[in-house]
Amino acid sequence: MPSSFHTTRRVEFSDTDMAGIVHFSAFFRYMEEAEHAFLRSLGMSVIMQDEEGPYGWPRVGASCDFLGPAKFEDVLDIHIRVAHKGNKSIAYQFNITHEGRPVAIGRLTAVLCRLAHGERPRSIAIPEWIAAKLEVDPSLPPAQA
Amino acid sequence: MPSSFHTTRRVEFSDTDMAGIVHFSAFFRYMEEAEHAFLRSLGMSVIMQDEEGPYGWPRVGASCDFLGPAKFEDVLDIHIRVAHKGNKSIAYQFNITHEGRPVAIGRLTAVLCRLAHGERPRSIAIPEWIAAKLEVDPSLPPAQA
Amino acid sequence: MPSSFHTTRRVEFSDTDMAGIVHFSAFFRYMEEAEHAFLRSLGMSVIMQDEEGPYGWPRVGASCDFLGPAKFEDVLDIHIRVAHKGNKSIAYQFNITHEGRPVAIGRLTAVLCRLAHGERPRSIAIPEWIAAKLEVDPSLPPAQA
Amino acid sequence: MPSSFHTTRRVEFSDTDMAGIVHFSAFFRYMEEAEHAFLRSLGMSVIMQDEEGPYGWPRVGASCDFLGPAKFEDVLDIHIRVAHKGNKSIAYQFNITHEGRPVAIGRLTAVLCRLAHGERPRSIAIPEWIAAKLEVDPSLPPAQA
Repeated sequence: MPSSFHTTRRVEFSDTDMAGIVHFSAFFRYMEEAEHAFLRSLGMSVIMQDEEGPYGWPRVGASCDFLGPAKFEDVLDIHIRVAHKGNKSIAYQFNITHEGRPVAIGRLTAVLCRLAHGERPRSIAIPEWIAAKLEVDPSLPPAQA
Repeated sequence: MPSSFHTTRRVEFSDTDMAGIVHFSAFFRYMEEAEHAFLRSLGMSVIMQDEEGPYGWPRVGASCDFLGPAKFEDVLDIHIRVAHKGNKSIAYQFNITHEGRPVAIGRLTAVLCRLAHGERPRSIAIPEWIAAKLEVDPSLPPAQA
Repeated sequence: MPSSFHTTRRVEFSDTDMAGIVHFSAFFRYMEEAEHAFLRSLGMSVIMQDEEGPYGWPRVGASCDFLGPAKFEDVLDIHIRVAHKGNKSIAYQFNITHEGRPVAIGRLTAVLCRLAHGERPRSIAIPEWIAAKLEVDPSLPPAQA
Repeated sequence: MPSSFHTTRRVEFSDTDMAGIVHFSAFFRYMEEAEHAFLRSLGMSVIMQDEEGPYGWPRVGASCDFLGPAKFEDVLDIHIRVAHKGNKSIAYQFNITHEGRPVAIGRLTAVLCRLAHGERPRSIAIPEWIAAKLEVDPSLPPAQA
């Protein structure tokens, strides 16, 4: 089953800047929080624990194209889908709209890693039970369909 | 020797909000960073290590009065002084001005604690060598003198 | 009718710091967003418009006592009440808990102001229709009751 | 003369997250602030004013690859260069290192726009005097050279 998820987010006052709109860096927080909500919806978290200790999804790349402004108290629609699945990594695509109007399209690539305290993350193969929950969704984002 | 310190900080674009001025929450980051610069100037850090492990200064209280706006690219003067010294805690006062004009007066209270990973911080007495570097400075803040 | 409001907020990854808990400055954003949700629940916003132009609630003071840590994905309860009502100002008290455990108690004081673009805010008397919606609630915060 | 610029930035406590390193979204703020310092070094700002009113550089795209962790109090080197110059847009490349070790490589694309208050930004051709200060620098980033 292709994996996708929808959530909403209301723009907060502190997300805006002196140009009167959401600061571009805030969209990366929006994307990350949507990813975490997506993982929660699948019964997972961005940091999990097994008998070998904690493991999780450090990000190795992020990008965003800004297509239109978002304003204070706008309720944004955020669609997330699995755009690519590798042996150790997942790339998510995010489509952010406001009342159907395109606002931003972003991408986040995360690599599954062992997270030993005080050590550098070490990438590991995605276990089958996780990979099964994160199927690539080839559909176009809603605003481009 | 009374302990005080002066640093400057340029307002960044992402610190501003749609009202065109620095968002009030940013002043708490400014205050904390001035505290850390102050500690560095004394050869310390907000998190240190001894043979028993890491210890540091979790904050238990913070307050700020906002006296005037700060704008993008303003270079703020931040004066910090030790306002109170307890057995386990230090209270800093911050006086933030722009070209002599009052912008904010804040206060941060931190408690020295053992910081064992995964455990709740446990307060400890401030060692003599640290206490000696953090003498109460009874002077009025510059903008009120 | 005493004015109070309850909302919840899930701690996001970017709200945490290297100590593994919510950074203290994030609580001020939490408080502000709860205030704005409270205003929305009363049919108002933090920035409104009448025939004379925009007006709103710049903050003149903020404080918070930190009583216990909050962690990633904790769903915090935020109770807000009107603690004081002046002729031109409102002080809100916030009681933040996690599953009944005290996390933070904060206060925000805002002054109603005319907000002409490019000019400094000018305080004005709170109109009767707004004052009627913001009655002082003398009750103790839940965690202290 | 190819346009490039170097600045440094110390990692602040509030930039870190519970993984103990700089949160990925902070690098976008670092990049933007380096861009603004670059513009200041050339006698410009990200928002300027002429007889027709304000104009500036809204961003239309941002991306970053994360190559290694950055920690609290690390002093990062940020090299910025003009990677592409269009008729109305500029793309900057950022190379972020710590003591020579690669940390992040990012890109920011900004479009010169008229910024009338309350209206949507309208792109304009880059005036000759600005274009002359922003020459493409074809050099490889230091960490890749």
